[in-house]
Amino acid sequence: MSDQKIQIAIVMGSKSDWATMQEAANILDELHLPYHVEIVSAHRTPDKLFQFAEQAEQKGYKVIIAGAGGAAHLPGMLAAKTLVPVLGVPVKSSMLSGVDSLYSIVQMPKGIPVGTLAIGPAGAANAGLFAAQMLATTEPELLKRLGRFRATQTAQVTDNPDPRG
Amino acid sequence: MSDQKIQIAIVMGSKSDWATMQEAANILDELHLPYHVEIVSAHRTPDKLFQFAEQAEQKGYKVIIAGAGGAAHLPGMLAAKTLVPVLGVPVKSSMLSGVDSLYSIVQMPKGIPVGTLAIGPAGAANAGLFAAQMLATTEPELLKRLGRFRATQTAQVTDNPDPRG
Amino acid sequence: MSDQKIQIAIVMGSKSDWATMQEAANILDELHLPYHVEIVSAHRTPDKLFQFAEQAEQKGYKVIIAGAGGAAHLPGMLAAKTLVPVLGVPVKSSMLSGVDSLYSIVQMPKGIPVGTLAIGPAGAANAGLFAAQMLATTEPELLKRLGRFRATQTAQVTDNPDPRG
Amino acid sequence: MSDQKIQIAIVMGSKSDWATMQEAANILDELHLPYHVEIVSAHRTPDKLFQFAEQAEQKGYKVIIAGAGGAAHLPGMLAAKTLVPVLGVPVKSSMLSGVDSLYSIVQMPKGIPVGTLAIGPAGAANAGLFAAQMLATTEPELLKRLGRFRATQTAQVTDNPDPRG
Amino acid sequence: MSDQKIQIAIVMGSKSDWATMQEAANILDELHLPYHVEIVSAHRTPDKLFQFAEQAEQKGYKVIIAGAGGAAHLPGMLAAKTLVPVLGVPVKSSMLSGVDSLYSIVQMPKGIPVGTLAIGPAGAANAGLFAAQMLATTEPELLKRLGRFRATQTAQVTDNPDPRG
Amino acid sequence: MSDQKIQIAIVMGSKSDWATMQEAANILDELHLPYHVEIVSAHRTPDKLFQFAEQAEQKGYKVIIAGAGGAAHLPGMLAAKTLVPVLGVPVKSSMLSGVDSLYSIVQMPKGIPVGTLAIGPAGAANAGLFAAQMLATTEPELLKRLGRFRATQTAQVTDNPDPRG
Amino acid sequence: MSDQKIQIAIVMGSKSDWATMQEAANILDELHLPYHVEIVSAHRTPDKLFQFAEQAEQKGYKVIIAGAGGAAHLPGMLAAKTLVPVLGVPVKSSMLSGVDSLYSIVQMPKGIPVGTLAIGPAGAANAGLFAAQMLATTEPELLKRLGRFRATQTAQVTDNPDPRG
Amino acid sequence: MSDQKIQIAIVMGSKSDWATMQEAANILDELHLPYHVEIVSAHRTPDKLFQFAEQAEQKGYKVIIAGAGGAAHLPGMLAAKTLVPVLGVPVKSSMLSGVDSLYSIVQMPKGIPVGTLAIGPAGAANAGLFAAQMLATTEPELLKRLGRFRATQTAQVTDNPDPRG
Repeated sequence: MSDQKIQIAIVMGSKSDWATMQEAANILDELHLPYHVEIVSAHRTPDKLFQFAEQAEQKGYKVIIAGAGGAAHLPGMLAAKTLVPVLGVPVKSSMLSGVDSLYSIVQMPKGIPVGTLAIGPAGAANAGLFAAQMLATTEPELLKRLGRFRATQTAQVTDNPDPRG
Repeated sequence: MSDQKIQIAIVMGSKSDWATMQEAANILDELHLPYHVEIVSAHRTPDKLFQFAEQAEQKGYKVIIAGAGGAAHLPGMLAAKTLVPVLGVPVKSSMLSGVDSLYSIVQMPKGIPVGTLAIGPAGAANAGLFAAQMLATTEPELLKRLGRFRATQTAQVTDNPDPRG
Repeated sequence: MSDQKIQIAIVMGSKSDWATMQEAANILDELHLPYHVEIVSAHRTPDKLFQFAEQAEQKGYKVIIAGAGGAAHLPGMLAAKTLVPVLGVPVKSSMLSGVDSLYSIVQMPKGIPVGTLAIGPAGAANAGLFAAQMLATTEPELLKRLGRFRATQTAQVTDNPDPRG
Repeated sequence: MSDQKIQIAIVMGSKSDWATMQEAANILDELHLPYHVEIVSAHRTPDKLFQFAEQAEQKGYKVIIAGAGGAAHLPGMLAAKTLVPVLGVPVKSSMLSGVDSLYSIVQMPKGIPVGTLAIGPAGAANAGLFAAQMLATTEPELLKRLGRFRATQTAQVTDNPDPRG
Repeated sequence: MSDQKIQIAIVMGSKSDWATMQEAANILDELHLPYHVEIVSAHRTPDKLFQFAEQAEQKGYKVIIAGAGGAAHLPGMLAAKTLVPVLGVPVKSSMLSGVDSLYSIVQMPKGIPVGTLAIGPAGAANAGLFAAQMLATTEPELLKRLGRFRATQTAQVTDNPDPRG
Repeated sequence: MSDQKIQIAIVMGSKSDWATMQEAANILDELHLPYHVEIVSAHRTPDKLFQFAEQAEQKGYKVIIAGAGGAAHLPGMLAAKTLVPVLGVPVKSSMLSGVDSLYSIVQMPKGIPVGTLAIGPAGAANAGLFAAQMLATTEPELLKRLGRFRATQTAQVTDNPDPRG
Repeated sequence: MSDQKIQIAIVMGSKSDWATMQEAANILDELHLPYHVEIVSAHRTPDKLFQFAEQAEQKGYKVIIAGAGGAAHLPGMLAAKTLVPVLGVPVKSSMLSGVDSLYSIVQMPKGIPVGTLAIGPAGAANAGLFAAQMLATTEPELLKRLGRFRATQTAQVTDNPDPRG
Repeated sequence: MSDQKIQIAIVMGSKSDWATMQEAANILDELHLPYHVEIVSAHRTPDKLFQFAEQAEQKGYKVIIAGAGGAAHLPGMLAAKTLVPVLGVPVKSSMLSGVDSLYSIVQMPKGIPVGTLAIGPAGAANAGLFAAQMLATTEPELLKRLGRFRATQTAQVTDNPDPRG
């Protein structure tokens, strides 16, 4: 894994989002996919956001996973500044359960898409999986690993079918 | 009015937002306050957004009125890039009645405020009034004009108290 | 375009969804990307859904765009049956404005991701763009076309900055 | 009860749903109705879901109780694959209080019905009761038992009318 | 059909609900199932509601389909007064799009279940289908008719797979 | 009716609310109860609101019906300034279907109650009825009239039980 | 107080609602107004509900305070069966925070009004106050007590104006 | 700071709101801006509210920060009574997470604006910042302080870019 090119970046609006976003990292670890992690705040560090987006393509990122809560502008603004696909993870907000985060991320206007996942940790994990599935469309070896991941996931249910067990 | 300094800017994410935002312009016209109007799209013209915000102070703007709908990032990103106060107007969206616009604008994180008005034309008109009230705190003449505006508004009710009339 | 491999499939739950989903097709047409279009109903044709998903990889699809409304199970069930990335478009429902469609598509459990776009036609167009951006990560020529698409989009704003014009 | 035919199946998307769904089992126990219990995940075990639905009629099930949370596709997909009536129980989700579960289950399109109960444990208990009421339309003895169940339920209120007691 | 016993009743809170509820009647007509139709208002005719529920079993009804809008108490109060299974159809309300109707019908407390269908005409049609599926668990001939109904429904999609056609 | 004391006042925030609030007037007309009607705007005529509330008791009002939309402060502020019972009618708002009006009226803090009716014309009519029921607790003649009103209302259903008629 | 006629009844759907509804009782205690308290469940004891409503007038009740949660039918069904004014208190539900309770109580159709208070304990307390204000319209002594109650309430704020104190 | 004129008032509906509103005070302390703090309840002390608003201009306030929860009428009623700009902070309510507070504050009708901030403590802090930004449009020294505040805020992110650190 050490000599693998980093093709995935995980960014988030604040340190507190890591509790959610590490689920994305965990999935990528499990799939042996390297990634870059960084705090990039749309509101506190707008210039850094623009620089990050402007350099994303040249750095070789093929997908950016961006998590944010509340008036979550990070995923949409990254998407506005780069053609690298952006996956958005609505972080649960303390006041509105993440409905505000979800609407702020998913309701992008025509022209600038953000692929949005579920609110919270499940969404972060799925962003990691979606990123892997994207890369796997041109990496047969990764596709196999994903196949095994899914088979294990299925077996966890089929091997323990009784919820009372 | 011609030699008055322009202290108010009205920006919006798309041409279609003008139907809503012209209510802000109408109020400022009525109060004889000059303003600048421009389309600035957070998602389609992010660089223009940053330039606009970076020059806002130097151009002499004392308040920016920004309208946007859906995943409405324009007001919040302007606020992130300038210390000029930003008023946000949630434009009614075709799908979620503007709840998405409202949440995307008002739920800003600690550190970057946007003063948010009501969804739709009433909010746009009130953004114009709020801007005028802000300027009036240091312009006694404007304060008087606002006083007359309010008195007229009140009289429209008190002179016609019967809804059946 | 005639000899290009079809890497994108657009599926939807019913004929009436085409009014929304054709926005995805329009974008792909504009970008000269061929695609397959088909009605696949999770509820009325579940077996067809499974067959479609099982054959997706072998048919060479690198991304599936799936639109559905109400209790919208099509995107999630496709995602459960294939490793080809699935983009979900919540079609506006007649009763709940598409909030039901959105929740049914985006709130997928950990393990099976669906990249979700905005409710309605804007979301469909953006699904087309997101699909193109995904393919462009390994197709430099397409990336250039997308760059021109964005430049045109930006110019439409910057060339007509006055909303009153 | 040992020689009674099992006419009711209780399925759920994950082991964690058992905390909710056991309320259905408890009611059926109380009414001396045998049932089958199994984890069937729409997203992690889609093939198992189809097999389960395809065999439901032949196994003699006259009603299936299906509980799921979030983008809850289990009840609707079962209903799409069998003519055995399906009762859906929206399990409370950690993010949206089960509104997502409710909408994903109840908002089925014309042609494939799911009889939906309340969110959470009360809904699970009521799914058990509804299943019993369905069977009781052709089992007079069961109808009597349900009558006694209701009488007891009523007496619990009428015998203790003072909430301060 | 003339000498068939009527086992299904369709009731609704007001004449205006018929626009929605006739979808249930249409489905039953299509399946050659006779039914009783009547306006029973929980709020304007509470005594009639009680009488109707008290006589339901003796009249031979095996399922009651009840539609109501707003603070929709009809399905729940019928369910409280009879052991005949009650299916509830939330009629779209003029103010809250039927969310009020849905919550008032589906959120029944533990002990008194209402099997709830989707908001509006699709829900009414599905109530008819669900009623038929319930009866079909003990009527093999009806089960066959339902099988043909579904096959036709499926064929409508599989025979016309192109949404542009 | 001419020599009857006026015990009911109907107030509303703007002339446009009359389309809703006249339903209250119609009910009172039907019950031969005189009433006072006036526009009182919490936001445009706050002083008039206070004067109205301060004089309400002395004018002999025994109930005030107040309708307002959006950030509907009229009912709550009247209630804060008088001990005459205030009934609030949430007028449907153009943006949020009256949910904003409803929450602004019903969610009063402990200490200052507003008896809230349904959103829109039905709520206005019911405010008229509730006012009449309040007065009827000490006016036996009015109670009889209300009894006849209800009997007629019931007969409209029982005389036309077939929704297809 | 011992020889005072009981003019107020407080009813609720279950024993657990007492935690909320005792706030109404506390207010009435404070105002020296006697009241009757009883559990009356719309769903578990529908016949008792009807008897209660049918006897309410004759028992001398001039107002009924009814609290219920979820699909809260108690206030509306009482209102359908008596002309005694009914005040509804939406009890907070475990799943939907009482929004379901609120909609089920407040969205009554034209013809049968329920005066609805806020969700939870504040609403219960205010139901007590509203009942007192209703009675006070014909009891000058009670009006004075209510005046003192309000004066005390106001003084609690004006005597301690500093929130940091 | 001692000889500075107080230009900012922070008011709130009850003592319990201080837990939220002190965030505004903390920001102003950090920026060395003096302020006045007081409990002013729209519902329990309406007369005090009016007096406060009537004297606001003469006392030299250039901005009022008003926090309230539930049916939050304080900010809007202050705005109706003075031309001093009013910033509204929706305090999180115990039942509806502050959605009721938000709607009651932000959805003001045309003519009386309230600049609304986010729900809860973040909104309170941002109200302090927005007030400072308003004053800074005519106080260059304060503008510099705000610039340093922002630079520090930005540095907190850029100096600690790794969320795992």
